[in-house]
Amino acid sequence: MNRSAEVICVGTELLLGEVLNSNAQFLGQELARLGIPHFHQTVVGDNPTRIKRAIAMACQRANLLIFTGGLGPTPDDLTTETLADFFQAPLIEHPEILEDIARKFAQRNHDPSPSNDKQALLPESAAILPNPIGSAPGMIWQPRPELTVLTFPGVPKEFHLMWQETAVPYLLDHGWVTAQIYNRVLRFWGIPESTLADKVAPLLSLTNPTVAPYASRGQARLRISTRTSSADIAHQVIAPVEQQIRQLCGLHCYGADEDTLESVVGDLLKQKGQTLAVAESCTGGGLGQRLTRISGSSDYFLGGVISYANSVKQGLLKVDPEVLNQHGAVSAIVAEQMATGVRSQLHSTWGISITGIAGPKGGTPTKPVGLVYIGLAGPDGTQSFECIISPLRGRDWVRHMSASSALDFLRRQLLA
Amino acid sequence: MNRSAEVICVGTELLLGEVLNSNAQFLGQELARLGIPHFHQTVVGDNPTRIKRAIAMACQRANLLIFTGGLGPTPDDLTTETLADFFQAPLIEHPEILEDIARKFAQRNHDPSPSNDKQALLPESAAILPNPIGSAPGMIWQPRPELTVLTFPGVPKEFHLMWQETAVPYLLDHGWVTAQIYNRVLRFWGIPESTLADKVAPLLSLTNPTVAPYASRGQARLRISTRTSSADIAHQVIAPVEQQIRQLCGLHCYGADEDTLESVVGDLLKQKGQTLAVAESCTGGGLGQRLTRISGSSDYFLGGVISYANSVKQGLLKVDPEVLNQHGAVSAIVAEQMATGVRSQLHSTWGISITGIAGPKGGTPTKPVGLVYIGLAGPDGTQSFECIISPLRGRDWVRHMSASSALDFLRRQLLA
Repeated sequence: MNRSAEVICVGTELLLGEVLNSNAQFLGQELARLGIPHFHQTVVGDNPTRIKRAIAMACQRANLLIFTGGLGPTPDDLTTETLADFFQAPLIEHPEILEDIARKFAQRNHDPSPSNDKQALLPESAAILPNPIGSAPGMIWQPRPELTVLTFPGVPKEFHLMWQETAVPYLLDHGWVTAQIYNRVLRFWGIPESTLADKVAPLLSLTNPTVAPYASRGQARLRISTRTSSADIAHQVIAPVEQQIRQLCGLHCYGADEDTLESVVGDLLKQKGQTLAVAESCTGGGLGQRLTRISGSSDYFLGGVISYANSVKQGLLKVDPEVLNQHGAVSAIVAEQMATGVRSQLHSTWGISITGIAGPKGGTPTKPVGLVYIGLAGPDGTQSFECIISPLRGRDWVRHMSASSALDFLRRQLLA
Repeated sequence: MNRSAEVICVGTELLLGEVLNSNAQFLGQELARLGIPHFHQTVVGDNPTRIKRAIAMACQRANLLIFTGGLGPTPDDLTTETLADFFQAPLIEHPEILEDIARKFAQRNHDPSPSNDKQALLPESAAILPNPIGSAPGMIWQPRPELTVLTFPGVPKEFHLMWQETAVPYLLDHGWVTAQIYNRVLRFWGIPESTLADKVAPLLSLTNPTVAPYASRGQARLRISTRTSSADIAHQVIAPVEQQIRQLCGLHCYGADEDTLESVVGDLLKQKGQTLAVAESCTGGGLGQRLTRISGSSDYFLGGVISYANSVKQGLLKVDPEVLNQHGAVSAIVAEQMATGVRSQLHSTWGISITGIAGPKGGTPTKPVGLVYIGLAGPDGTQSFECIISPLRGRDWVRHMSASSALDFLRRQLLA
């Protein structure tokens, strides 16, 4: 049988639609990247008979079975024991798992409960697939020749770490991977996907690397891909095309791969030895929250004021009550006074402000939901601009786009 | 055979992880709501042999097969013809589908291409399942007695409309819906899933309603479920068990269903006519961001100070520089002064503060990553508590758990 993988996701919560099965997508992407063929995904509930039938089917068509879910401490977590039962292997208790669980609980000032004990049971001859952050370990098991079983908890963060830290190295070591797909993703702000696609049109018909546009969360992206045996070769194929794209798109391209608007802004501030403070109304702290997701952001981010109520705009940010009265909180001049105020109160190089109508209520004919003003105070004075964000995608969307637009405004100033 | 449904999602793009399979979640929720049992979901690529094997398997275990995907105009869209081939039914061309497609293309100033012709083919005896917005219709087909097949395009927006407008009325009319599943989800803070499971252990073996624990984002939950013919009966079955759980768990249970810690705190503040201000260090605005996700939070949330730098703690929050020097920013007394400071600066009923080490850097032996102090200033004075959050799940996790713990601290005070 040619090598191929099959994905089995266990959990009644998946069948009930309570949980979105992002694990199946993650595995699809990873198996594609590693070049491991994969033709079926199955979702089955917490039922031993049906789990066994799924195992029986999967062994007939694949030789790498990847399970997610059903490793928890409760009686409806059945993956490990059902696999052991199916392959008629006894379950063996691993004291090192019990110790690991006890240590993790101790860090949170809790005691493990007796129900955690079953998480220390693995079929004879199975190896522990360590879980660096959660209580449930997985396993790597060859229940019979030419068949490998991997199990993972359903919690995506735990699963992803275990996949990257242990499963991928295992698959590389055991001949599952010959060539990989290497991707470079370029990220854009301020240009819609269709305009971007037109701008780089000739590159979209390349075959190696391929270039494909896509969009997500309001950002257009271009993915440059090649399938090859080493990262060095991939880089040689991808780098010249990346450079062409950057020349075509200029400042619209803000970064690549893991870059975010906040990380790019942070790097620029750090390079210049400058500092930033924020004054947030409709985003309620979301801009500060994004800036401080980055460890080390204290090098350039001082803090700010969440001026949700007008009294806070006046009291802490020194916005003129007359101006508030005359122009309303959602106005260019208030945005400018907020930015100036926070810059002067916090003694930062830059002050950036956001005031707008996030909705769904609070809009008027002249100031509709989605109207946002962004202010920026810096060494050369204060300016503002108006954003009109589609209200159709909801309050979170308006807030997210406001914070992103504010970051991009500052980024372009820092590069000017 | 008892009535049950099975979901088959067709598309190589799903196996490659290019598309998140939200259709499977939608169907899971809908089938659960309608009380149509559903034990398997399968994802299979655009391959006729594998699609046929999936059909063969599914007919053995279910009598309502629901397909999504593979109805488009391109050669790799194979669902309809493969179903016809499997059940040996001839394909019949439906002129009304061709007319409908031509009309929709005309609205967009395009002509249909010859490849659209295949979308007008349905197996003999199949009924059209109209697509109000896209070119691909689905079908409702009984290829043999006691077996119903529904097909839908993979585009979620088209699929959802077709499901609601045609499939659900069909299922109601044809006796598929007799009883529905009613769920009540109780939400907990301050108790791990395993401890919760032990506390309510006797209830976990109930059969009507069933009680199942699960956890997500640090929160334990209990799902109470019953399958019955009316919401009233469901309530009668669920309410006494809910009450038992609430008695066993006390204040650990913070809400049910769509409640969040921030919505529960918001409701309590609104009821009391009280206001809140926040002083955030390591969360950088994340607590304010969560509180203001709720439309109408301006009724009780005034704003706050993001005091990331010590200069801001001193300047805007009036934290004593001596105290900062002596105890460090991450200390109970600084948390208390931050809470007191923000309450007095913003004239709010409550001031809540967070100061901690989110990591991954910045920890010391005496003040490790994950150490967080939360302060709460209120009408009866100021208090603080220390949280030790596992640093293993990363910076975002420490920040999320800090904000949640702060909200829970305030919630318990508001209920005291």
